[in-house]
Amino acid sequence: MADARIAVVVGAGNYIGSAIAKRFAREGFTIAAGRRNGDELSPLVEAIADEGGTCHGFSLDAREEEQITDFFAKVEKDIGPIEVCVFNVGGNVNFPIRDTTTRVFTKVWQMACLAGFLTGREAANYMVPRQRGAIFFTGATASLRGGIGYAAFASAKFGLRALAQSMARELGPANIHVAHLIIDAGVDTAWVRERIKQAGGNTEIPEGRLLDPASVGETYWQLYSQPKDAWTFELDIRPNKETW
Amino acid sequence: MADARIAVVVGAGNYIGSAIAKRFAREGFTIAAGRRNGDELSPLVEAIADEGGTCHGFSLDAREEEQITDFFAKVEKDIGPIEVCVFNVGGNVNFPIRDTTTRVFTKVWQMACLAGFLTGREAANYMVPRQRGAIFFTGATASLRGGIGYAAFASAKFGLRALAQSMARELGPANIHVAHLIIDAGVDTAWVRERIKQAGGNTEIPEGRLLDPASVGETYWQLYSQPKDAWTFELDIRPNKETW
Amino acid sequence: MADARIAVVVGAGNYIGSAIAKRFAREGFTIAAGRRNGDELSPLVEAIADEGGTCHGFSLDAREEEQITDFFAKVEKDIGPIEVCVFNVGGNVNFPIRDTTTRVFTKVWQMACLAGFLTGREAANYMVPRQRGAIFFTGATASLRGGIGYAAFASAKFGLRALAQSMARELGPANIHVAHLIIDAGVDTAWVRERIKQAGGNTEIPEGRLLDPASVGETYWQLYSQPKDAWTFELDIRPNKETW
Amino acid sequence: MADARIAVVVGAGNYIGSAIAKRFAREGFTIAAGRRNGDELSPLVEAIADEGGTCHGFSLDAREEEQITDFFAKVEKDIGPIEVCVFNVGGNVNFPIRDTTTRVFTKVWQMACLAGFLTGREAANYMVPRQRGAIFFTGATASLRGGIGYAAFASAKFGLRALAQSMARELGPANIHVAHLIIDAGVDTAWVRERIKQAGGNTEIPEGRLLDPASVGETYWQLYSQPKDAWTFELDIRPNKETW
Repeated sequence: MADARIAVVVGAGNYIGSAIAKRFAREGFTIAAGRRNGDELSPLVEAIADEGGTCHGFSLDAREEEQITDFFAKVEKDIGPIEVCVFNVGGNVNFPIRDTTTRVFTKVWQMACLAGFLTGREAANYMVPRQRGAIFFTGATASLRGGIGYAAFASAKFGLRALAQSMARELGPANIHVAHLIIDAGVDTAWVRERIKQAGGNTEIPEGRLLDPASVGETYWQLYSQPKDAWTFELDIRPNKETW
Repeated sequence: MADARIAVVVGAGNYIGSAIAKRFAREGFTIAAGRRNGDELSPLVEAIADEGGTCHGFSLDAREEEQITDFFAKVEKDIGPIEVCVFNVGGNVNFPIRDTTTRVFTKVWQMACLAGFLTGREAANYMVPRQRGAIFFTGATASLRGGIGYAAFASAKFGLRALAQSMARELGPANIHVAHLIIDAGVDTAWVRERIKQAGGNTEIPEGRLLDPASVGETYWQLYSQPKDAWTFELDIRPNKETW
Repeated sequence: MADARIAVVVGAGNYIGSAIAKRFAREGFTIAAGRRNGDELSPLVEAIADEGGTCHGFSLDAREEEQITDFFAKVEKDIGPIEVCVFNVGGNVNFPIRDTTTRVFTKVWQMACLAGFLTGREAANYMVPRQRGAIFFTGATASLRGGIGYAAFASAKFGLRALAQSMARELGPANIHVAHLIIDAGVDTAWVRERIKQAGGNTEIPEGRLLDPASVGETYWQLYSQPKDAWTFELDIRPNKETW
Repeated sequence: MADARIAVVVGAGNYIGSAIAKRFAREGFTIAAGRRNGDELSPLVEAIADEGGTCHGFSLDAREEEQITDFFAKVEKDIGPIEVCVFNVGGNVNFPIRDTTTRVFTKVWQMACLAGFLTGREAANYMVPRQRGAIFFTGATASLRGGIGYAAFASAKFGLRALAQSMARELGPANIHVAHLIIDAGVDTAWVRERIKQAGGNTEIPEGRLLDPASVGETYWQLYSQPKDAWTFELDIRPNKETW
């Protein structure tokens, strides 16, 4: 499928990142998925292959400029022109301010903000000359609210949102759709289910409280499907029973 | 098509309201469209019929509680259970604060906010017992920003947004999707083109600056299509070349 | 004291409104205080007199254009040019959306938003020709958040905030300071203490959770004291132990 | 004056930082002022001495954890317990996204956000055990808006705001006042006047458009003066003729 459109997912974790990759693969996109340990991408690559799609897995430390530059260059050279770029690296931690080490504050920023900058800028480098493309960033509740214990995480997520906003304003006229998706909920992952159980005892996870990763993929697909006279910069998503 | 889903559009003007009606009709919805002068709905009713759909037109002053109550009762009794309700009444005016009459301030609020309350509450009255449905409100730039001269309009639009937010928080758990769509742009209407020409002389409307009403319909359809574990409350849309 | 500056307080209730009046009286301002039942202003008038100041009490239904017009005219004619105008009418109610009557929705808006418009516009009418003055509006948590049950109140408070924002942008260049003060807390009143007790049983009100009305007076005085190259439009205040 | 209260200013530049230092000195505070090149603090130290106050100048690279730790330790040991800590380091740059180097993006974050974290956390380390103090952060227009070309600066300022918000929520109950001051205007400095002249030709700076650094000092003093039942977290300031 030499002329398939290409979607890049930076931060292709087991849940949201993989779900986004699958959703775009289902529409005929060839996927280039990057995460720290590329070996862990095998299940995703296989799952997409099983559905008749193509996903290339890459080991990628998105905090490293050179790795990002090489990754994009390789994708553009070996796979084709990138049409969609999704940045989905997380970094959720919670510490009281006095227990937040400089190392943690810096690392969380490198993962959730600097890596977003490196990814977004490199995508722009390829897309601007072509005057087309989409660059999407995954946000969180902490993108809008600096809650107790979230000094590091909220600081990085606020920073990512500012980056996205600035890029959207600059690149919209160049026909590049930049958007920021605020996931205002727990996502249904093994880890979140464990955390909820620990917090609330052995109760069942209430129905309607967790977000299915596949729904994030769906939302990104909707964003990509928008006509260019009605592009969304920012939207929130949450399960219907979420308290907010 | 006795079992078609029903969509109600309150404020079914020639542009956005009609575009929303057409979009949902195209998906098989039967439409109940209301506007001040129901006679002006003939083109919409015919356009939808031409595409094989069904649209019922109603004369409706959405500021009048009794008219709203009667309208909803009639739709529910004669057409069927309302699945989607879109409130789309405008009221954009601009006056310096000292030239804003009490009559204007009140009327704009009645149109853009009180009517939204009457519409939303009545939709909730039918939807809550059924534990399903969607209630969507059309917002504007003035929903987030009280610009110079917009004391009346922004006040009403801020008020509508608060209503939508409060309803979303209350009705989400009842399985009703409440959303608020911020149209941050001029919409491509005869009136807006005229205004732009007057403001800027005889220049052409720059490409990429106006929003096609059909795209609003598309966005509402996307909102309706969301899975309930990933409902959006608020999103903005604007053309790619809009300055913001 | 023929040349005292004049401060008008619309909505001079027993707590916040009175505290504002006292604070400005203490700085030598002559106060013109209005509330629905002017008889209830006697304690305020006396308290200010006891401190050597002057407060004139007026019966004033701030929702009525004519009463506002007459009130301002009388103050300007009989007392002097208004330097500061504070709008402080409340209207906090909480109802589920389906139990919110049209009467309640309308009345809350009339009190918390329309009356603010009438007051602000009339103040502007006198201040703009003089190119000086200050117009301050009291906001609440519900000015920024449409919580469950607050469809009516938040809608009105959002609306008031939009009005204030629009006026600030228009009137700043005319040398009139428009500001919006968000009180994000319960205020220490008999009624709030009662409500807290009812909600939480017979526990004591925790220290650091309620806001002293006098502190609102202090904040308004700070706003008034700002140099005109550094005017604040909006600030929040809350007790140090408030959860937000 | 052994028992003077102590105010620390991190980022004591020639304009805002110095003005804050002078304002608190005028109230009897002993000042500990830090900036990159401590030698440049001589005029400030002298100006405060001329008014009968005391200011100690320190060379301080606020991006370096050890320097911050040493600075606070020295102040606490040699001067006394810190009552107020103001973080005022800037970093305003503007580049198109593709011209924003990783070095610039990182440096701006280190100056405007990481240094704020290091400063705020260290202040908290001393203040929390004493259950008293104030920690103030200087924000900018870019704290709320990611404008074109401000990817680096807005990202850092958004991040600083999130940090401040998180600290305010955590430390308020510990009786520490954390606030974030948004300066939404050009400040009257030689550099800003130069920039405005370059942008607009040789026209005069319009009156009412620039903010006097002394007014920032005044605003910080007002924040510090607030009673603890009515603490402001965030406020904006701008000259009366600023367009916003």
